[in-house]
Order: sequence, then structure tokens, then C-alpha cells
Amino acid sequence: MSDRLPGFRDFYPEPLPANEPWSCDLRQHIFGRWRETARRYGFREYDGPPLEPLELYTNKSGAEIVAQLFNFADKGDRAVSMRPEMTPTVARMVATAERAYKKPIKWFSLPQLFRYEKQQKGRLREHFQLNCDIFGESDAGADAEIVALLIDVLRALGLTHEDFVIRLSSRQAWQRFFAARGGDPARAYEFYQVVDKLERERPEVSAEKLAPLGVKLEEVQAFITASIPEPELQTVIDNLSARGLGGFVKVDYGVIRGLAYYTGIVFEAFDRKGEFRAIAGGGRYDQLVKQVSEGKADLPALGFGMGDVVLAELLKVRKLVPSFTGTVDAVVLIEDETLRAASLGVVQQLREAGRAADYSLTPAKGDKQFKRALELGATRTVRLERGADGTVVAKIKDLKTREEKWVAPGEVATAIAG
Amino acid sequence: MSDRLPGFRDFYPEPLPANEPWSCDLRQHIFGRWRETARRYGFREYDGPPLEPLELYTNKSGAEIVAQLFNFADKGDRAVSMRPEMTPTVARMVATAERAYKKPIKWFSLPQLFRYEKQQKGRLREHFQLNCDIFGESDAGADAEIVALLIDVLRALGLTHEDFVIRLSSRQAWQRFFAARGGDPARAYEFYQVVDKLERERPEVSAEKLAPLGVKLEEVQAFITASIPEPELQTVIDNLSARGLGGFVKVDYGVIRGLAYYTGIVFEAFDRKGEFRAIAGGGRYDQLVKQVSEGKADLPALGFGMGDVVLAELLKVRKLVPSFTGTVDAVVLIEDETLRAASLGVVQQLREAGRAADYSLTPAKGDKQFKRALELGATRTVRLERGADGTVVAKIKDLKTREEKWVAPGEVATAIAG
Repeated sequence: MSDRLPGFRDFYPEPLPANEPWSCDLRQHIFGRWRETARRYGFREYDGPPLEPLELYTNKSGAEIVAQLFNFADKGDRAVSMRPEMTPTVARMVATAERAYKKPIKWFSLPQLFRYEKQQKGRLREHFQLNCDIFGESDAGADAEIVALLIDVLRALGLTHEDFVIRLSSRQAWQRFFAARGGDPARAYEFYQVVDKLERERPEVSAEKLAPLGVKLEEVQAFITASIPEPELQTVIDNLSARGLGGFVKVDYGVIRGLAYYTGIVFEAFDRKGEFRAIAGGGRYDQLVKQVSEGKADLPALGFGMGDVVLAELLKVRKLVPSFTGTVDAVVLIEDETLRAASLGVVQQLREAGRAADYSLTPAKGDKQFKRALELGATRTVRLERGADGTVVAKIKDLKTREEKWVAPGEVATAIAG
Repeated sequence: MSDRLPGFRDFYPEPLPANEPWSCDLRQHIFGRWRETARRYGFREYDGPPLEPLELYTNKSGAEIVAQLFNFADKGDRAVSMRPEMTPTVARMVATAERAYKKPIKWFSLPQLFRYEKQQKGRLREHFQLNCDIFGESDAGADAEIVALLIDVLRALGLTHEDFVIRLSSRQAWQRFFAARGGDPARAYEFYQVVDKLERERPEVSAEKLAPLGVKLEEVQAFITASIPEPELQTVIDNLSARGLGGFVKVDYGVIRGLAYYTGIVFEAFDRKGEFRAIAGGGRYDQLVKQVSEGKADLPALGFGMGDVVLAELLKVRKLVPSFTGTVDAVVLIEDETLRAASLGVVQQLREAGRAADYSLTPAKGDKQFKRALELGATRTVRLERGADGTVVAKIKDLKTREEKWVAPGEVATAIAG
């Protein structure tokens, strides 16, 4: 039997089979909280194609990104790629249609993204990502709004300030640092990449890379250790404090983000214990819409992305995954087959009243049906019974309290609602 | 600027820009009703990878399907394809994990599917599809349950029996028809394909194709015109009638479905006026799990798929698309910048109470902020005001009734809930 591709996931309903760790219920729980929080912040949902012209990515990130893409030539001989990130797509969409929308544009999306990562244990080649962006506002008030949203998305999943922290940094601060040391502006991104790799690389290697850029490693380390809030970051922190969210952020210039297109604030969300990779990351990218649209539109922008993989692991470790059983409101037991038609009527009645109702599709022994109701974690059973005088009544049994009541078959949904 | 690929869609938030007909709000409305109805029927959600080994499709449908696939060799030189349908994936998933689940397994999914269709106006190369399947039950009671679900999914979107009908047919009935005329069992699928194309092809062409199969066109036409319910279909109709859903189906042997793997009941949902292509289609495929799993698992199965494209068009024409404005519960007006911090506190208070709250990220004139609240279709505005004695109060204005009330800043969320 042909198996699924390496690095791709099947999402099963709970209870999960052995060796299948990805729960569709947990995924939908996460998606629900993502959507609900974005809605509270006045963000609107959009989506784009999972397959895009290859040049959408090579224009932005250079040809070397191709090694990590699921790219190919389609049957019309177009160079195409499965999307590795959402920002180029949303920049294109905004550039196309920005005149139809009042600014600032506050949008979110939940795309599945694809990267041909080098194969390692647990290394995936697809993930889902919450993408939230604000277009058309250059003020730090937008920076604070997007960081507040990030914080509240994590809180909506049950995480507290003991679980995570937002490390806040600034490309501008690093730009000024580099300029003050006579750094060549054309090599600024090269410098940022060394800073980005600092935590993962041996000091000698970093020092060697910094030397030709005219920067000493000790100066970089001292700047990070101090992490004194520059004015643009202090404004964001004050804004967050006014919301009561100041305790969720700290200035940390050790964060600089790898991507080339950031121009202002950058930030990452981390678990406080440092057990996981970044939970989310983002920043301001004021030039990207102009670049992607080849000058057709020019809007300041910022946003963040939060993947589902690290997040799901963190929720599991922190015991913040809810139970997904007990989704059935009523199991209708059919023990007398002459009452099957009438029982189907009750099933339909319950479902039309918005209840999740289930029943045995075929004749089965009463105790087997009851056992199934328990396995499903059903809230109650309903059973039609024919009395001595031939009239049919419905017995509703609460499986928790074991309370029983009898109602007319046409009154079952009402009796449950009451 | 590189445009999106032909046949792919961007989904924008409403109000939609010119020339961008695909609403993300409508899509999410449809997805919501799909999920909600499946839940009422006790179906559980799953998902699989959008990229699969190519052989998953060629094994089932033969090599000719490749012309319609987005297939390629990945960087590990695997022959892969973006999924053109969900059934092979779910058959693989069920075969892998069926022992972990009680039967019948009732599952649904909302995959995006991809086909390299010949390019025509309005012809898409991707769509979303509700897939609902039951595994492990061969009884006609499962057939009725899946058809009932299909009916109620359409009803949940506001469609009535005046809008749509389910055309019910049977591969077995056609098999018996073919056998009774001495048809070669090995050529049965060839015969089904002629029947499938009957409505779209000139009679002479159909007659010519039928002749070598030993069947007369007139006999086929007479069988379809009569469409007398065979016993297996009558059982399904009786079951649906017991639920009060009998009026939504009719027997119509003109439906036979193109795919090779159907073995029993087949059905399609059509708009009554016949303006659109099929809204949904499905049937029983008792051999597919065995085939896909190479004998590892063997479960009877049936299901249906419902695409989002025809459905969205139908909802628009029938005026069943709800309004998607007015998603903001409160706009907080900040007219006095010395009250911005306190106003941000009110915004946060509202959002933490589950309300969608918005505000101007930067200083703006009061009338401009108010106008924006109206454009957003907000339910109310909230404005902090400093009284003569220096105390700050919140004025809540209902934008519909124009009613105003004053409360303490810390009481805004409570006042709105009350």
C-alpha cells in the first residue's frame, strides 16, 4: 500500500490510532481560537492559492530559495511552486485590490505552507500557519496592535505569561548600530544574518564573519545583553501596558529574524522555559508591497505568522488540550424494529433542532447499542417504547445523572432543550 | 506584477473589490454549515496531505488520469501529485487505522482539490469539497443516512425541496440490466460510461457505442424513462420518508456516475431548474478500501462530495447569501489623545469579554472616526469623556436605536452584555 509522503501529516479524529499523533480535533480547536481572536481584533479572513507562480518567491527571496520549494513546471509549462509562506500572496492581493478597502487593512489567513526541508526525525514539510497583517499604517500604534493580537491568540489557547514571552527587537536599532560603526549599508542584510545565527553558531565563527563588516563580536554581544529599549520600542511597550499586556513582552535584540524584507520592529514568541523553537514571529515590512507589485501599490505593512506544529506540542506539554469526546448529544436506541421508522423520525427531529444525534444504522442488540452510546460519550439516550395500550412514548435517559423521563415522541427535542 | 495562476482563486473579505468574485466570508459561511451539519449527524472531521504519491491515483483510475493532474517529481525524485479527489486518501487512512475505530466509521473532510482542466472561461483548476463517508456498513441503512446528510447539508444553507432534488440510481440495477441482455461482465464499465454520457451525446453516437455491447439505445432510454425503483432503492426511499425527507429524492437511472469504483447506489444532487451542473454526487464503493490498501483492509464504504463552486453560484442566484457586514460589536472613539491609554484599556476589556472591538490606531478627527464606525457597520460606539470634575466616564451609543448611556470605564463590557 502506498504510504503518505515523508514530512506530510494525516489528521485523524480522536481517540487517535497508535502511531498517528496528529489530531484533527486539536487542529480544529487551534483554528477556532485563531479565528475567534482575530475576529475580536477586527481582522477579516482572506485566502489565496496554494500554488503560485515561482517568480513570486524568487523575486523576493532570490534564486537560492528554490532548493527549499515544492516547485515544478505545470502542464502549461509555467514555473510554479506550492506556497512556502503567505506574505508574497497577501502582498499581491493587497496590491491588486487595496483601493477597494479603507485603511488600515487588517487581514488574517490560515494557509497550509510547504517547504522541502532536509529530512530529519519530526521535521515536517508542511504546516498550517496563522498569518495576521496590517496594511496602510506606519505608526507604532499598528505595531502594538499586532503584538497585542499575537499575545491574545496565545492566551485564547490557555497559555499565560508564565508560559510564553514576546521578544521584541528592531531592525532600525540594528541599522543604527551598524551605521554608527561605519558599516556599508549595502552589506546591512549580511550583518543581520550573522546576528540572526549568533545563538546557534560558535563565537569564533561569528567573530570571523563580523570582522570584514567592521564590527566586533563583543560590541554586538554587549548591545544584546543591554537590550535598552529604543524609543520606537518604548512606544509599543507603553501601548501594550495600557492594555494590561506589558508583562508579556521584553526587549531582546538577540532577535533579528532571518528574512530580508523586514524594515522596522521584529519579534518572536517563545515558551518561557526555552524548550521549543519560536512559537511565532513577525515584524514590519514597509517595502514589500511595493516590491511585489512592482510599484503598482505602496503600503507600509507588518504582520506575524504562527505555525500549528510547535504550538500543538506546547499545548500538549502544558496540558492545555481539551477533551474532544462527548460530541454526541443523544443516541437513539432502536430495540423494537417495528419502531425503526418512528425512531428515525426522532433522530431527524433532534438533528433539525441542532443536536448531534446518532443511532445504530442496522438492527442490533439493546445492550450493544447502549454500550456504543457510552463509548461515544453521549449525553443521553432516547428510546421509543410501545405501551400496553399501543401508544408510543419516548424514554430519555441522562447518562450522567441516570435520570429518566418519558415524553411524547414529538416532544423529545423540546424536552431536552428545557 | 506576477498574477495568480489561471484557474486559481483569491478569496477576499467583503465588500468585494471589482473583478474579484470570490468571497472569503461566503466560503467560510459554507464551510461553517458543512461542518455544523456533519456534526449533527455524528460525523467526525479528518484531513490528509494535499500532496500524495502519484500511484495513489494511477492505481485506482489508470494512467490516463495523469493528463488531468498537477503531478511532478519532488526533490527526492518521488512521483507526486496534488490531490485531485479525497477518496483515495481517506481509503488509505481508514485502511491504516480502522482497527482503532468502532464501526461504522462516519467521517468528513473539507479538502481543496486540484485538476489541470482544459482552460475555459470560468473553468477552475481547484475547488473545495465537502467529503462525507461511512465505512464498515453494507446495509442500505447507511445509504439512507448518507443521502439524508446530503439533503440536510443543502437545507442548512437555506435551500428547500423547491431548489434541489437528489437523483437516486443504482449500479446494481444497471448491472442486472446489462447481464439480462447477455452483456460481457468485463465490459460492464464500458457500458456504464456510455450511459453516463447519454445526456451529453447525440443519440446516433450512443447507439453506435452500445451496439457492440449487445444493447439497444431504445432499451436504455426506456429503462431510464420508467425509472422504476428497484428494491434496494425503495428501502432507501422508505428510510428517508420516515425522516420526512422523501420529497427530496427521485429515482432516475439517467444518473450512473463516471468513476469506475462505484458498486451500489449512486446519486447526484441537482438544482430543480436545471441551470447548473451537479451540486454533489456520490455512491457506494465497497471494493475501494481493499484495492487501495492492497488487501490490508476490506470495508464496505460509501460517500459523497460536494464542491464549493456550483454551490456558491446557486446560493447567489437563490439569494441565500447572508450579509457579512456588521461584524464589529463596538468601535471605541478616541477624540481626546490624553485618554488614548484608558481607551486602549476599554478596547482590551471588550475583546477579553469576547466582543469584536476596533478603534483608530492613530490620532484622527472625531467625525472621521465616527464615519469609519458606520462604514464598519458597528453595532455601537464607545467614547471616554472627561467630566468637569476630572472623572472619566464612558458613553455607549447604540448606532441603530441612537440610544446613549454613560457608565464607568471599567463597566463597558458588562453594560453591553446587559
